[in-house]
Amino acid sequence: VRVEIVAIGTELLLGQIADTNSQWLGEQLAAHGIACHFHQHVGDNHERIIAALRIALSRADAVIICGGLGPTQDDITRSAVAEIMGVSLVRQDFLVERITAMFEARGRTMSANNLLQADVPEGATIIDQTRGTAPGLICPVGSQVLYCVPGVPYEMSDMFSRAILPDLLERSRAEGNTSVIASRVLRTWGAAESALAEAIDSRFDELENSDRVTIAFLASGIEGIKIRLTARGDTAEHAAQLLADEEVVVRTLITDAFGDVIFGVDDETMEHAIASRLVARGLTLGLAESVTGGLISSRLVNVTGASQWFRGALVSYASDVKFDLLGVTPGPVVSGAAAEEMAGGARTLLGADIGLSVTGVAGPDEQDGQVPGTVFVGLAIGDDVSHVSFRLPGDRARVRSYGAISALNALRQAIDRLL
Amino acid sequence: VRVEIVAIGTELLLGQIADTNSQWLGEQLAAHGIACHFHQHVGDNHERIIAALRIALSRADAVIICGGLGPTQDDITRSAVAEIMGVSLVRQDFLVERITAMFEARGRTMSANNLLQADVPEGATIIDQTRGTAPGLICPVGSQVLYCVPGVPYEMSDMFSRAILPDLLERSRAEGNTSVIASRVLRTWGAAESALAEAIDSRFDELENSDRVTIAFLASGIEGIKIRLTARGDTAEHAAQLLADEEVVVRTLITDAFGDVIFGVDDETMEHAIASRLVARGLTLGLAESVTGGLISSRLVNVTGASQWFRGALVSYASDVKFDLLGVTPGPVVSGAAAEEMAGGARTLLGADIGLSVTGVAGPDEQDGQVPGTVFVGLAIGDDVSHVSFRLPGDRARVRSYGAISALNALRQAIDRLL
Repeated sequence: VRVEIVAIGTELLLGQIADTNSQWLGEQLAAHGIACHFHQHVGDNHERIIAALRIALSRADAVIICGGLGPTQDDITRSAVAEIMGVSLVRQDFLVERITAMFEARGRTMSANNLLQADVPEGATIIDQTRGTAPGLICPVGSQVLYCVPGVPYEMSDMFSRAILPDLLERSRAEGNTSVIASRVLRTWGAAESALAEAIDSRFDELENSDRVTIAFLASGIEGIKIRLTARGDTAEHAAQLLADEEVVVRTLITDAFGDVIFGVDDETMEHAIASRLVARGLTLGLAESVTGGLISSRLVNVTGASQWFRGALVSYASDVKFDLLGVTPGPVVSGAAAEEMAGGARTLLGADIGLSVTGVAGPDEQDGQVPGTVFVGLAIGDDVSHVSFRLPGDRARVRSYGAISALNALRQAIDRLL
Repeated sequence: VRVEIVAIGTELLLGQIADTNSQWLGEQLAAHGIACHFHQHVGDNHERIIAALRIALSRADAVIICGGLGPTQDDITRSAVAEIMGVSLVRQDFLVERITAMFEARGRTMSANNLLQADVPEGATIIDQTRGTAPGLICPVGSQVLYCVPGVPYEMSDMFSRAILPDLLERSRAEGNTSVIASRVLRTWGAAESALAEAIDSRFDELENSDRVTIAFLASGIEGIKIRLTARGDTAEHAAQLLADEEVVVRTLITDAFGDVIFGVDDETMEHAIASRLVARGLTLGLAESVTGGLISSRLVNVTGASQWFRGALVSYASDVKFDLLGVTPGPVVSGAAAEEMAGGARTLLGADIGLSVTGVAGPDEQDGQVPGTVFVGLAIGDDVSHVSFRLPGDRARVRSYGAISALNALRQAIDRLL
């Protein structure tokens, strides 16, 4: 089954929002072995949406249409799709009730145009909403299909995983394609993409003519480099075995070259790596953040159950807050010594087993004689206090993001070094 | 002149990199009043690139092709464009010399395939490289044109500004099009998109046949709803005047319906709205964050110069941190009373003029008898302490993000109410 993605919205053409949906969908389709040869962006214009969809249907079996399902005048995907299907839009009472109930549950007044979201092309199937108001649609066009999902990424991704992907896999099986794809992402922090590629170059060569296993790099900016392993097996068990074998090969090559840079697999973030280590050892954590401004803390609390091990954080943005509350010696605050005092102070103030601190210069100006991008990370584990330093690239936001993940990675490696 | 953007690269389809070029180009074209109705992504495949370019030429006067100009086997844009033009590729001696000299200057060995970058379709004009090795191309196809630029964003943007935009504006003037486009985004928080649309419905109707002014909604998730006003004038002054007039009309309709929900224009974020208010009044801010876990703090420090008014934050994730450091009365911590004590405690602890606090339930479980999504925001302005509460939708991450911007919005409105 060949898929095409059509993202709808004048705001995409005008560059007012980034199309992250096509990228995410592309990654998902690739991970499941589904071919996708084209993406299109088109504005909120009936004739041009129709034109884009006709082109998509001329070269793909299934089209995923993102956006234009909301309640406003620009949201015209429903009527364009109905025209392609050659059917009418019919208002569905059960959707009217559902949308009305949703507004009532939130104590909000519903304007009448919200009911446009209850209009469904005849013959289409609903994809239930679990996160917003506009339902998705599965719209057959002969043996082909148009899937319509909202442009809001977390509504789109939910509907894709829950309804569209299973339907695509079913269509793929119906075509006689019985192979099963399995994939896994190894998440790394601390090695450059070109260096990782060099480390597994020999394996790339060995796999060059393989139709079973592929390796690809996904640059994920501040989250490091991801390595996606994909295996095509005759059965689920076969695919899983190929994948497991490949993971051993790649992990060995990378660990031999760089040590402990793989911090997680698939959706495991750096904060999950931290959480599992702290839980396993029954340790609690307290933070002192300066340059990162609360970013590390806000990442850690995303882990469900963080209250089990996370005591809290002091964002000591003003220098005298560092002196008064953390007991840092008055003087320059961007230094290894200040980072160590901050970590010890956080541990004491917040009553934690481990104190982690970050101080540095986000820029644009120098501070305490240090250039922008300079970051010191302090660690206080019991009475054992230490620091590491980094020189990070980029503007304020990037220095901060890189600083946060660098600090968490330093903490991860320090915990692993504990007896 | 109508432009279409075709981004080339299998890595775009596989979701391995984001297509930031189309967004950037879209923004540039819109800012210069050049229509762009479609974007396409296509992989490194000769037939499919040809197909995408033929479609683009069937509906646009000019096509900007990004990517596929490098030295590897995947870089096949040159030959596809030559086929569309019906001409041969000719190796240009001056480009061979230039590329060779560039490698020599960097002290690097040049592999032979780099000379593919010296191949130019007959009849095409070169766009000189200033930042990399592959030159850009301006390729006439009858009265139409294909512009080829590298996919590396900073090479692409340089060539666009230096060669493509001037050529497009020249073509636009040659068509007798002398109008100028101006646009502005109004940023709102606190009213649903459907409600905003209803409030300005009458204005939408009045503008339905206008070729001068358009209004569009951009849903920005946790950043609220943006309203984009676009005006087309005969001169820059005319466009600016149309835009200013329209802004008054729309602001009045929205303010009459919802009060003070517009917090900024264009790139002004909620944290900029807070910063400008605090700076104007010479006030400093301290935070106590529980459910938001540092998110508010990490947003505020993104504003350059935040150290002028931001003292810091205590992320009091563990309850006893609230009791011990903020002086909250031991007991339930998800309540309006606890929020007020936290705000007062943050103000005192951090030595700030204003204390802002957030406590609530991110979920998935209830806490202190409150359901997930319940958030209390406390404010301590001098000795005047108060709180507001919200019931927010979504999972943990969304409750937190909505909680953060809701708290900042409450602070914004509270500062505006000060004498």
